[in-house]
Amino acid sequence: MKNAILVVGSVALDSVQTIYGRTSRALGGSAVHFSMSASQFAPVKIVGVVGEDFPVPFRRLLQRRNICLKGMQVLPGKTFHWTGRYDRGLKNAVTIATHLNVFEYFKPKLAPPHSECGVLFLANIDPDLQRDVLSQMSGPRLTACDTMNYWISLKKKSLVKLLAKVNLLFVNEEEARQLTQEHNLLKAARRIAAMGPQITVIKRGDSGSMLFYGGEVIAMPARPIEKVVDPTGAGDTFAGGFIGYLAACPGWRNFRVLKRAMAYGTVLSSFSVEDFSVKRTGGLSKAEINDRYKKYVKSLLID
Amino acid sequence: MKNAILVVGSVALDSVQTIYGRTSRALGGSAVHFSMSASQFAPVKIVGVVGEDFPVPFRRLLQRRNICLKGMQVLPGKTFHWTGRYDRGLKNAVTIATHLNVFEYFKPKLAPPHSECGVLFLANIDPDLQRDVLSQMSGPRLTACDTMNYWISLKKKSLVKLLAKVNLLFVNEEEARQLTQEHNLLKAARRIAAMGPQITVIKRGDSGSMLFYGGEVIAMPARPIEKVVDPTGAGDTFAGGFIGYLAACPGWRNFRVLKRAMAYGTVLSSFSVEDFSVKRTGGLSKAEINDRYKKYVKSLLID
Repeated sequence: MKNAILVVGSVALDSVQTIYGRTSRALGGSAVHFSMSASQFAPVKIVGVVGEDFPVPFRRLLQRRNICLKGMQVLPGKTFHWTGRYDRGLKNAVTIATHLNVFEYFKPKLAPPHSECGVLFLANIDPDLQRDVLSQMSGPRLTACDTMNYWISLKKKSLVKLLAKVNLLFVNEEEARQLTQEHNLLKAARRIAAMGPQITVIKRGDSGSMLFYGGEVIAMPARPIEKVVDPTGAGDTFAGGFIGYLAACPGWRNFRVLKRAMAYGTVLSSFSVEDFSVKRTGGLSKAEINDRYKKYVKSLLID
Repeated sequence: MKNAILVVGSVALDSVQTIYGRTSRALGGSAVHFSMSASQFAPVKIVGVVGEDFPVPFRRLLQRRNICLKGMQVLPGKTFHWTGRYDRGLKNAVTIATHLNVFEYFKPKLAPPHSECGVLFLANIDPDLQRDVLSQMSGPRLTACDTMNYWISLKKKSLVKLLAKVNLLFVNEEEARQLTQEHNLLKAARRIAAMGPQITVIKRGDSGSMLFYGGEVIAMPARPIEKVVDPTGAGDTFAGGFIGYLAACPGWRNFRVLKRAMAYGTVLSSFSVEDFSVKRTGGLSKAEINDRYKKYVKSLLID
């Protein structure tokens, strides 16, 4: 179980519109995007909740990727449904409607084997729930969390308590600024480090990502993409590649391993934006990933 | 003369205000920022114009860096003076006043040895002047130009004619979009390549840079900086490091050389933003540059 990853987060239906088209009630949610990506490297178990309307083909798609759904509760009612639209820049989503539905009653209870997973990813949910889940785990060797602007303004105290207990925080750059009241990302990262996490990863969309560990910083560019069809879930897909790679490694406390994890996160998220929902990541082969990874690594080699 | 760089552009006095302080009538201008950076690698000759008020210490500072000022005309009147302010994000400058002064009458006439330089950098000036200068050169082996939003809206036809004749274009991302009407930077770069330049470098500030050459793209991150004091001239300093490195190489038509040039541009511009005016780049040692260069290259090595 040391390599198994537990992800706790949303399983959703997404209706998304971008300049390249639209989807209606497509498979989405942070736990789903994360799992599609992480399962390329290590076994993943989802803890989440769906309604009775959750389509069987979506369940099968996840299972085909060896994602364990035994912790995915089915409650009477409808699945979480998000409707959004992206502007031409494909950066900022405008939420048209959020129907939490059964997700409103999500209160994860863990038992073995879930509580015994070696690696935990707390996707973007209420920090009270994130802390509750963390307290139910029996000694994971790596814990990571994500969050969002909503929780930073609404439940900052609870979030800060969580940060004192996790190894790794994923945030985007605006969230990092909001959380620390520092505009400069190096200063923001130093403040976050003082809150607890040994590692902070700042996700910057098409500007790449930055990793902070032990007072050092690494910046990596995004892989340029000619046609960004749908950026939904790119951040969770990044986290999935990153955490997935670390889960498959014997240890994560060194820069060489962390840089590879960043590169895999970058590569996986570059696939995810090429199509709607999990169309691209759901059918991805290991060969495609390794091919793009090698090219990405080579592009950064200056000799 | 094959390695000598001719830069044609503004020599200015800048009054700049940022959250870290202000300067009054400090040394600035595109040709100056470029030269400070490029002269670390190859001999540089400035063709420009100043007024009778141009301070002697500034002239000495440039000459101490072995920047040739024989092509820097002195006209009756005052030196180009720009007054600007940056917001907290230190990304966008607000121009408070632009006094072109003698720069309004800038009409460069080249003679040997200036016209025989092997490398030409046409800094951001009227594209009609840029073309005129280019036509006065006797067979340079590398020609590069910069431009800005103002010329793209006002003199696009002339700019497009220039682009058909240069090897390399430096633009920032908004200019690339404005010039091509393409939001996606890969698409924009493809359109620019169709206009003529073999190489396009898109400067993205703290998001790094992208280089396009022969249908391939390389993205590099900016070096993270904890205290960006003044971003004025960072783009020209980047171009200076880039072109300076290429000028010192026997050939530029290969990716390994171009990547090193990008890395030097990145490193030089990372110094330039650490203080006002050319305070940082004016006193930079080769050892400081090489030290930061090595660390930057190592940070991008994923093994």
